[in-house]
Amino acid sequence: MAHTLSIGALREAYRSGETTPSAVVETVLDRIEPDERNVWISRVPAARLKGRARSLDEQLAADSPFEDTPLFGVPFAVKDNIDVTPLPTTAGCPAAEYDPEADATVVERLREAGAIFVGKTNMDQFATGLVGTRTPYGTCRNAIDEAYISGGSSAGSGVAVATGQVSFALGTDTAGSGRVPAACNGIVGLKPTRGALSNTGVVPACKTLDCVAVFALTCADALRVERVAAGFDPEDPYSRRGVSSETFSLSEAAETTTVGVPTADGLRFFDDDEAAALFEDATARFEDMGVEVQRVDFEPFLKTGQLLYDGPWVAERLSAVRDLVGSTDALLPVTRQIIRRGEEYSAMDTFEAQYELKRHRREARPVFESVDCLVTPTTGTIPTIEAVEAAPVERNSELGEYTNFVNLLDLAAVAVPAGRRRSGIPFGITLLGTEFTDARLAALGDRFCRAGDEPVGADATPYTRFEGL
Amino acid sequence: MAHTLSIGALREAYRSGETTPSAVVETVLDRIEPDERNVWISRVPAARLKGRARSLDEQLAADSPFEDTPLFGVPFAVKDNIDVTPLPTTAGCPAAEYDPEADATVVERLREAGAIFVGKTNMDQFATGLVGTRTPYGTCRNAIDEAYISGGSSAGSGVAVATGQVSFALGTDTAGSGRVPAACNGIVGLKPTRGALSNTGVVPACKTLDCVAVFALTCADALRVERVAAGFDPEDPYSRRGVSSETFSLSEAAETTTVGVPTADGLRFFDDDEAAALFEDATARFEDMGVEVQRVDFEPFLKTGQLLYDGPWVAERLSAVRDLVGSTDALLPVTRQIIRRGEEYSAMDTFEAQYELKRHRREARPVFESVDCLVTPTTGTIPTIEAVEAAPVERNSELGEYTNFVNLLDLAAVAVPAGRRRSGIPFGITLLGTEFTDARLAALGDRFCRAGDEPVGADATPYTRFEGL
Repeated sequence: MAHTLSIGALREAYRSGETTPSAVVETVLDRIEPDERNVWISRVPAARLKGRARSLDEQLAADSPFEDTPLFGVPFAVKDNIDVTPLPTTAGCPAAEYDPEADATVVERLREAGAIFVGKTNMDQFATGLVGTRTPYGTCRNAIDEAYISGGSSAGSGVAVATGQVSFALGTDTAGSGRVPAACNGIVGLKPTRGALSNTGVVPACKTLDCVAVFALTCADALRVERVAAGFDPEDPYSRRGVSSETFSLSEAAETTTVGVPTADGLRFFDDDEAAALFEDATARFEDMGVEVQRVDFEPFLKTGQLLYDGPWVAERLSAVRDLVGSTDALLPVTRQIIRRGEEYSAMDTFEAQYELKRHRREARPVFESVDCLVTPTTGTIPTIEAVEAAPVERNSELGEYTNFVNLLDLAAVAVPAGRRRSGIPFGITLLGTEFTDARLAALGDRFCRAGDEPVGADATPYTRFEGL
Repeated sequence: MAHTLSIGALREAYRSGETTPSAVVETVLDRIEPDERNVWISRVPAARLKGRARSLDEQLAADSPFEDTPLFGVPFAVKDNIDVTPLPTTAGCPAAEYDPEADATVVERLREAGAIFVGKTNMDQFATGLVGTRTPYGTCRNAIDEAYISGGSSAGSGVAVATGQVSFALGTDTAGSGRVPAACNGIVGLKPTRGALSNTGVVPACKTLDCVAVFALTCADALRVERVAAGFDPEDPYSRRGVSSETFSLSEAAETTTVGVPTADGLRFFDDDEAAALFEDATARFEDMGVEVQRVDFEPFLKTGQLLYDGPWVAERLSAVRDLVGSTDALLPVTRQIIRRGEEYSAMDTFEAQYELKRHRREARPVFESVDCLVTPTTGTIPTIEAVEAAPVERNSELGEYTNFVNLLDLAAVAVPAGRRRSGIPFGITLLGTEFTDARLAALGDRFCRAGDEPVGADATPYTRFEGL
C-alpha cells in the first residue's frame, strides 16, 4: 500500500497517466481519516486540499511539470514547530500557538517544487524529548504496534510516512529527533549537515544545533527532498554556504568502501538482545556488500553525547521558551522540569563545556580519516509507551545514546531500517559522516536497504518495491 | 640604531661576516641593561645568553645555517603568559607563577629555527587590559615618550622591539593586545588568523579567542616569524588545519586593490584631532598608491566589539583564573573587578550573546566580498599614563574601539605605523581581512609603510632602512 506514495513511484504513475494529483489526495485523505495514532495536530481542510489537487491535475494535463517542479504532486507533512501558512504553529504547546506570517524557508521551497502540503504533525513539546509521549495532543503511537512509542520529537512526521499518509515529512533534529522516529517506525530519516537547510520559520530548540530533517520511505526520496529544501539563507545566521545541488545528488555521491563500527565496549542495547543480534547482522551485511568494516573507539562520541545531556546546552531551550517557563500551566511538567535545568548553568560552565566539546571533537573527528563513515545503532532499544510512562527521563535518555553527539560534532546522518524484532518492531542503524557527506550516506543507506530488501513502514513493504533511483 | 636588529638586515650582516651572534648578543645586553621602561619580568642570565651565542658563532663559521634555521641568530622576547623554559611564567601575577615543563609550541618552533630567546616581558595581568599599567612589575612605559602608555596587554613585547632590544617579540591578542602596543610604539603588530599559531603552553585569557601575536620592525619580519611559528597542533583544540607555509609568504601574497574604510560616523578619535587627520592622510596614501578606497558601514563591527566588552566572554577569563579570583591578594584590584564580572552571566546569556554574534557576523562578513581588506585606526587615541590612572576603565575601553571585534569575527589583522603626532607619539592603522589573509595584509602593510617611509620605533628609523623582503 504505502509504496505507491514513494516519490519515485508517484512520479512514474503521474507520467504514465496511471494516477492524478486528485486521486493521490483522495488516497491521502482516506488514510488520514482514522487518526488513531495521534499523528496530526492540524491539517489542511479536505476541500482546500482537493482544490490544490485539481489545479495540479490541470497542470499535469497541460504539460510535463517534472523538470520545473521536481516534487510535483507529492504529499507531505510538516512537524508543528515549522511554520506553514495558514495553519497555526504550536511546537506541541497550545500556550505558544501563533499564526505564522509566512512559510518557513524550507516549506516555501518544497511548495514551489510542486509538493502538496497536508498538515502539521504531533511532537514532543518544544522538540524536547525522543519519545512522542510528551505532548498535550495525545501520545503518538508506533506505526507497527500501537503499544510502542513512535519515537520523537518528530513523532507524527515519522508515523505519517510509515503509515503511507504522505510521501515524506519534515521533522527537526537537535539531539536525535529526526532519527529516532525513523528507527521506531522502520523508515528513513535524514539528518542533514547542520546549516544546509534554513531554520528561518522554525521554532528553535537549541539554535546552535537545530536541523530540519527529512523522513521518507527510501534514501533516494529523502535526498530528493533535501536537494529541493537545501540552500543558503542570508536570514538564518546558522545557514552555511558552499552547498550545490550536486552535494545532495545520489548519482554523484562518493562511494563508501570502509565503515567504522564501535568496538563492543562502546555498544549498549539496554538488555535488548535482539537489537544486539540485529546490529551484528547489519555489520555482516556490510561485509557481504564488500564494504570493509573497521572497529573504532566510540568513547569520544559517547563523551560528547553525555556533554549534551548533562551540559549547559539546555539553556538554549530555556532561552527559546523564556516567556513561558515561568507559568506553571503552559508547559508539560516533564518538559518544564527538563528545560528549567537550563537555569543551573553559568556563563563559565558554558564556555568550559564548549572547551570540552572542542577536545572531544579533536579526538572524534580523526576517525573519519580512516573510515568513510561510521555505523551505529540508531537506538539501542525501543520501549513501549507504558515503559516510558513508568520512567520517562531514563527511557528517553537511553534513546539518545547514539544520537546526542551528532550535531555537536557537526556530522550528517542517515537513519535506515535494519531488520525487525520478532515483535515486528523495527531495528535501525544510522550512517554518520562529516559535514556535506549527506549524499554519500544516503547512497550507502540505499545500497544497504536494497541488499537486505528491508521491510519498510507499517506494512513492511520490501524496500526494492519502492522505485529507487 | 634599532635597524640593525631587523631580521632581514641581521641575516645579511651574518652572511657577509659583518657581525656574529656573539656581537649581536652584546648589543642586546647593552640595550636591555637600563630597563627604565619596565619592559622585562625575567631574563635569560647574560652568561647563558653568551654561551648560546658562542655555539651559534661556531655553527655560522662551519656552514651556512640560514636554510635550515630561518631565524638563525635572531634575538627575541616572549610575553610572560607564554611558557619558555627554564624561566617561570607569571602572566603578570606573582601568585600565579609556575615553572613550565616545556616550551610553548610556538617558542619551540622559533628556537628550533635558530632564534635566540632573551627574556619574558611585562604585561597587563592575565592579559586583561590594553594599557600596560595593570601590572605589579611596574608600569610599562612608551618607547617614544615615557609619559605615555606602552599599550597592552603585550606591553613589554611592544616596547622591547620598538627600542631595538630584540628583533621581534611574541605577544598574545584576545581583544587587541597584539595591536595596541604596536600603535603606541610605532612598530608592526601581526595578529594571526585564529588557530594558525598553537596556544599550547600559553596561559588562556579567552580560550575561544586567544591568538599568539608577533611584534616586529617590518611587515616582512612579522610574516617571517609567523611562517616559522604557525602550524597545526593536535594538542590545541583550537588549532586549525589547512595552513601551508605559502599561506604566510609575502612573495606569494595576493595583491590588494580595494580597501574598505569606515564611513565618518563609524570613526571615533576621542577628541584626538591629530589622529583624525593622520587617518585621513593614511586613507589618501592608499589612494596615491593606486588602491581603491571604499567607505563601508562599520556598525556591525562596532556592535560586535560592544558584545565582547559588555558580554559573557569575560567568564572565559574567570574560568582561567578561577582558583585565584577568590583571594583578595592575588589579583590587582582592577583586574579582579573586571574578571569578577564574569560571575554575572548565565548560560542563557552566553548562548544568546553567541546568537547575536552570529547575526553580527552575518552582517559584517559580506563587506569582504567587495573589498580585499578593511583599514581602521588601531586606536582612536593614545593616552598618557596619568590619564589612564585617572580613569582606568574608560581609557582602556576607548583603546579597544577598533580591536575588540576582530577575533570574534575571525579576522586576521596587521597593525602598522601611520605617521606621528607633533608630540612624537605614533599613530597606527590596522589592516583587517578574513581568515588566512595574513600574508595579503602584511604585503599591503609593507607597501603602505614603504610608500610613506614610516618612522619606526623609539628612534623613528625610516621603514625603508630596514631590509624588507
